[in-house]
Amino acid sequence: MPREPIDYDRLFHGDRITVARAITAVENDDLIAPELLDRIFPRTGRSYRIGITGPPGAGKSTITNRLAAFYRTTGLRVGIIAVDPTSPFTGGALLGDRVRMTDVEMDDGVFIRSMASRGSLGGLSKKAAEAADVLDASGADVVILETVGVGQSELDIAGAADTTVVVLVPESGDSIQAMKAGLMEIADFFVMNKADRAGSDQAVMSINMILAMKPHAEWTPTVLKAVASENKGTKELARKIDEHRKFLEVDGRLDAKRRRRVEKRVRELVADRLRVDFWLSGREKILAERSDGLMARDVTPYEVAAELVEHFHRERKDQRHE
Amino acid sequence: MPREPIDYDRLFHGDRITVARAITAVENDDLIAPELLDRIFPRTGRSYRIGITGPPGAGKSTITNRLAAFYRTTGLRVGIIAVDPTSPFTGGALLGDRVRMTDVEMDDGVFIRSMASRGSLGGLSKKAAEAADVLDASGADVVILETVGVGQSELDIAGAADTTVVVLVPESGDSIQAMKAGLMEIADFFVMNKADRAGSDQAVMSINMILAMKPHAEWTPTVLKAVASENKGTKELARKIDEHRKFLEVDGRLDAKRRRRVEKRVRELVADRLRVDFWLSGREKILAERSDGLMARDVTPYEVAAELVEHFHRERKDQRHE
Repeated sequence: MPREPIDYDRLFHGDRITVARAITAVENDDLIAPELLDRIFPRTGRSYRIGITGPPGAGKSTITNRLAAFYRTTGLRVGIIAVDPTSPFTGGALLGDRVRMTDVEMDDGVFIRSMASRGSLGGLSKKAAEAADVLDASGADVVILETVGVGQSELDIAGAADTTVVVLVPESGDSIQAMKAGLMEIADFFVMNKADRAGSDQAVMSINMILAMKPHAEWTPTVLKAVASENKGTKELARKIDEHRKFLEVDGRLDAKRRRRVEKRVRELVADRLRVDFWLSGREKILAERSDGLMARDVTPYEVAAELVEHFHRERKDQRHE
Repeated sequence: MPREPIDYDRLFHGDRITVARAITAVENDDLIAPELLDRIFPRTGRSYRIGITGPPGAGKSTITNRLAAFYRTTGLRVGIIAVDPTSPFTGGALLGDRVRMTDVEMDDGVFIRSMASRGSLGGLSKKAAEAADVLDASGADVVILETVGVGQSELDIAGAADTTVVVLVPESGDSIQAMKAGLMEIADFFVMNKADRAGSDQAVMSINMILAMKPHAEWTPTVLKAVASENKGTKELARKIDEHRKFLEVDGRLDAKRRRRVEKRVRELVADRLRVDFWLSGREKILAERSDGLMARDVTPYEVAAELVEHFHRERKDQRHE
């Protein structure tokens, strides 16, 4: 299949088909992906990135859609990346995320893309962040990264977002457990969704109690109540996000956050480059030759790694003779 | 706290306290971990590694314990690493895994270790595989790696195991979904646990149908029925694992599988070493200097990465002058 080049002019003007194709290129680790990401980089850094995470069934999609619809009323263009890093085991969430409100989906100012694992699970969070770059470059004012919290994924999404919202429901009951285990570090604030259900006041109270116990230097996470299905709490959520954004903009906190993000990108690129450079020049062959010795436990992986690294460094020096 | 060195003689003789300390060192990425893994490597490769994965509540712990108890009756020493890569969000499974049968726990020929995420979620599968190496070197004949299937984790565990068993239950209903999404690649066979419940025959049938549709070159995954709580199906499971092991031993398949595993270890060590080598020598400073340019979009991450890699290669060449 001949690969049609990306029309960057169209991409930067938000042409939906081009945006979709660019995200597909990123998602599939297409050959053009590195060039694409390099080309769009100068156009990125304009959109505000919101991470929304929480357990399956907490209503993340509904909240995301309500928030997107609200931003539309203020004229902002919205991009949504819905990430489902769960395996088929945990099920449900995947299908659930597909049930989206058509009023948002039909809106030309909203671009929604689902990224599920589909068997190959590696690097999904990285690709989601890259897809966010594509949406950013295409003119989205706000990019919402939505993910099911199932381990590494919510941390990665938090790393890619400017503001991270953790959605909980009264019956999840895990709230306290959640607070204990490092979620305090990723949640800029909490939304207690389905707050019309029994036990919601108690759930909010228990989160607040734990929040009160932990000293916060500058920004204190709070708990918003919402009933997303009835569009209750959407404005408050948007206001809170805006408040957090303003907090970050003071004293260059947002700048520092984004700086770390772009430096991390450089480190990843360096690692990729070194890996490629390293495994050329016959070192694959050396590893294959040491394979029998490794299996016989005559040499250890550390010894083989050291030998290969030494070979790499020697080769660099020898290149001066050429 | 002064760090007591590991007594390798004790470790190799299966001293429980030393084994526990060694696994803790691996789990915490302790300074001694690299040396430890290097030292134990010659003693590894003797135990057979079984991966057991499946959705929360499928009864993986019970099956693992039953299987361990069965192996004990045949005189084999068993190590168990129970991995819970789930975040606090998904809850439940974590506590569930703690409810273990005391008859197995009390047995001196069984070593059980739980590894949960506890907030820091990175590299858990890698650490689990390293803990399996510790158990291997300590004299375990069989190492069982048990994990909740929630994404990347079950793939990683499958990569670390010789035989991978996927546990399902009738009501999970995700079986068909599961089959579609790449689980065929990791499951050497399936166990339908709680097979005394309604719908179990139907669930088994639907898995079998899908298995029949997919052509299998040499080994065809099948479905075993079990009621682990009543210890039904344990012997059949052990027999099936043994059958798969014998299959792998024909034509060097097991050897090839383990070879790939040890080569992967070498690649990881090389990447670690290169990263350390690279980020010394003032390149951190160069990155910091380019940071403003990156934020202003004057340069791209690719350009900065290329500059840094070039700097690295130049430095290698210059070292000849010293």
